[in-house]
Amino acid sequence: MTAQHSRIVRMKAAMARQGIDVLICFKPENSFLLTGFNPIIYSHPVVAILPLDGEPALLLHALRDDHGRSESFVSDIRLYGAWSTKVTMGPTWMDGLRAILAEKTLDRARIGIEEDHMPVARYRVMTDLLPDATLTGASALIDRVRLVKDPDEIVDARLAAALADEGMRAAVDTLAERRSEREVATLSMAAMNRAWCAMPDIEAADFGTLEGGVQNGLWTWALYGDRMFRNCDNPTLRLPAEGEAASIFIWAVANGMHAEIERTVAIGPLPDANRRAIDTILEIRAAQAPLMRPGTALAELFHLTRRMLEAAGYAANIPGRIGHTIGLGAHEHTSLDGRTDVVLEEGMLFTLEPNLRVPAHGVATQISDTILITSAGHEYLTRYRGGYLEV
Amino acid sequence: MTAQHSRIVRMKAAMARQGIDVLICFKPENSFLLTGFNPIIYSHPVVAILPLDGEPALLLHALRDDHGRSESFVSDIRLYGAWSTKVTMGPTWMDGLRAILAEKTLDRARIGIEEDHMPVARYRVMTDLLPDATLTGASALIDRVRLVKDPDEIVDARLAAALADEGMRAAVDTLAERRSEREVATLSMAAMNRAWCAMPDIEAADFGTLEGGVQNGLWTWALYGDRMFRNCDNPTLRLPAEGEAASIFIWAVANGMHAEIERTVAIGPLPDANRRAIDTILEIRAAQAPLMRPGTALAELFHLTRRMLEAAGYAANIPGRIGHTIGLGAHEHTSLDGRTDVVLEEGMLFTLEPNLRVPAHGVATQISDTILITSAGHEYLTRYRGGYLEV
Repeated sequence: MTAQHSRIVRMKAAMARQGIDVLICFKPENSFLLTGFNPIIYSHPVVAILPLDGEPALLLHALRDDHGRSESFVSDIRLYGAWSTKVTMGPTWMDGLRAILAEKTLDRARIGIEEDHMPVARYRVMTDLLPDATLTGASALIDRVRLVKDPDEIVDARLAAALADEGMRAAVDTLAERRSEREVATLSMAAMNRAWCAMPDIEAADFGTLEGGVQNGLWTWALYGDRMFRNCDNPTLRLPAEGEAASIFIWAVANGMHAEIERTVAIGPLPDANRRAIDTILEIRAAQAPLMRPGTALAELFHLTRRMLEAAGYAANIPGRIGHTIGLGAHEHTSLDGRTDVVLEEGMLFTLEPNLRVPAHGVATQISDTILITSAGHEYLTRYRGGYLEV
Repeated sequence: MTAQHSRIVRMKAAMARQGIDVLICFKPENSFLLTGFNPIIYSHPVVAILPLDGEPALLLHALRDDHGRSESFVSDIRLYGAWSTKVTMGPTWMDGLRAILAEKTLDRARIGIEEDHMPVARYRVMTDLLPDATLTGASALIDRVRLVKDPDEIVDARLAAALADEGMRAAVDTLAERRSEREVATLSMAAMNRAWCAMPDIEAADFGTLEGGVQNGLWTWALYGDRMFRNCDNPTLRLPAEGEAASIFIWAVANGMHAEIERTVAIGPLPDANRRAIDTILEIRAAQAPLMRPGTALAELFHLTRRMLEAAGYAANIPGRIGHTIGLGAHEHTSLDGRTDVVLEEGMLFTLEPNLRVPAHGVATQISDTILITSAGHEYLTRYRGGYLEV
């Protein structure tokens, strides 16, 4: 039963508009979107096949059969490869895919592929495998459908946000004890994992690559003082100093859906320049509230930020973007910048993170929340205290 | 100073043999191999450029400048994009790459690309950007060079193995308390993170994708009883039952290098069929010891496993492979199967994991270690107890 997922209906509508007869997804986030299955280890391709007319099919290596059947909402599961006593369609995914498309008389069809993800070598395999088909790029189409989340995805995003909040609570409490970046990060991750143990049916795995696999995606990192200018780094044993700021970043995942929360925390009272930057950002965030509702052009959030930063004397420090969409990826495709043409709709999920970097004055902020657009306006999914924080 | 890294010398020798003038790497594991920089978040491409004649260059988005300079062993770092007051080569990586290749008079050269990783859309951008160049596949060449590890990589693999051992110790101790899969996994991960806090200069980040980023790659998972037949799954709240087996899987990472350790642990005495399977696997592992040295064809390890399984009555249960190479990927390219043409050399790193699945009898084993080939033979990098384990 996939009819319940409006993302499948919306994907098919988009395919019809673009003249695509069947969509073939290898990208982990996208094959999960269409099937609900994350094998964690992707050494053997997981292929989601969505015909414009008909139900989706899932093509798996035989060793993923038991796992796939237990987790996918797709009932038409096909196997390739050799494993134990499993009967398969042939030794490779190519055998399986060719047979499935022939069976559905789609081997001469217009096939949507992920041109932003499919390696050029695999593309050549596909053109050799399906000489009478037309392969056409569908990455933008898929990204657009992913902008709006289904109710089941929103349930999971709320759980991810609850885990992230728990991680932030633990991180700020640990930072209050003046512990190192790495201790704050690892104790916060341990707190999220403890909270996960109280959520029976939730997976905390993320989406892997050909060479790896992400068993656990409950992550905290921390950058103190001038290390904030690195923007991202693995935590070190650096201790916080009085009068500097620390930024804590958290990503959490629940059944594939992500939440992000970030806070800049003062270690004792801050110099005026740093405090003023934080207060300015908090004012900008508050001013966005009436705009965050269906019908607002997403770029308006950016323009409001730019205008308020200019008015506060930060015209030289306008950020390139003030957030990004989020969902099956921690960083999904659309940026909250001045160029996006996206208009907010109910079910969209994004991070709101207008921030400042003024290296010459040692000033940086990193405050972010995960926000859902609702019919009535919006809802902060991450709820840890959002005001000025000092420990 | 990159002359110290024999991987750069070996890569250039392989490029010369294949007539490649310059190698351009976007794949995180490979750009790290050539530059030592992992930005963790790869939303903006990180491009490693290795000319056959000359030093490597690293092309980064300006926001990664401070981070990249602090961590890369490459001194020639170039920037694209806009960030703060940074001066860049242009708004996109394409601007930077075109200018660098023109400056090095390599814009009409034979350029090695990662055809197993580069998306078809990016390949089209590359052919438009460099109309007079010849793009040629170099994925197999790079994978082959990665088979042999440099001394600095082996130092890091040993640290990863020490973290993995600590995780296994904690997992087995926790399993002895009859706790759930998820508690065993999360407490083991917490133990690895505590051990990491005692290693000042080590990063525990893994390699990310366009939509994510892996802040922490110290992972444990556990499958109890018949859940072992899923081969991989996120841990659940299932408790162990007396007389069944549990498998614990651990991946750890230190500065990009991975180690793997896996153990099947008996929950009290096992039925004869399960015990006999474990004992057979332990005998096979012991019998491999004299083969694991420079000069052995890797396929011999597989053939010995096959012969011994047949002799023990498991002819219907021969696995497809009995391990894989490991390094910057937890699963690198080469499988320990009957078809590989790799001959063992000093510096090679692989997992040894002959295992059994006999679903009809509820029998499964999952025992793995990370093994380094040395001049004298081999060394187990993971050292947690390798015999029959019962708690």
